Amino acid sequence: MKFEVAVEVRLREGIADPQGQTIERALPALGFDGVEGVRVGKVIRFEIEASDAANARGEVEEMCDRFLANPVIEDTEVTIT
Amino acid sequence: MKFEVAVEVRLREGIADPQGQTIERALPALGFDGVEGVRVGKVIRFEIEASDAANARGEVEEMCDRFLANPVIEDTEVTIT
Repeated sequence: MKFEVAVEVRLREGIADPQGQTIERALPALGFDGVEGVRVGKVIRFEIEASDAANARGEVEEMCDRFLANPVIEDTEVTIT
Repeated sequence: MKFEVAVEVRLREGIADPQGQTIERALPALGFDGVEGVRVGKVIRFEIEASDAANARGEVEEMCDRFLANPVIEDTEVTIT
């Protein structure tokens, strides 16, 4: 069976996010007020062939730990449909 | 009211995604088979102050058009909670 996978990779709380800070600082000058806490992450989408959803999730979580994310500074969230 | 916003910025279909292709080529050598169609996007999360959810969405969509994404090559998906 094929499963659609989305992996969101975010910087952990407390880790500085210069890209997010730059966006946040730029917004008021562009006329957008009331925005705070901007954080920029990645989302990796793909299809995976697996016998069931649990196997797909296991494989994707191993991929996250091994090379899609840096667990020292990043958290991951796996969505399988 | 404050709303939590997530903006997913993806390359449009048909636009080459070298980062995704690199991940896809690397996976078999790392022992992960059965993965295809890897696409890498961005996710921008923040809080916005707005009178209601519809206003929040309108402001976020204008931000997307004006500077969070490049509409020539990117699609955006806005989630407000």
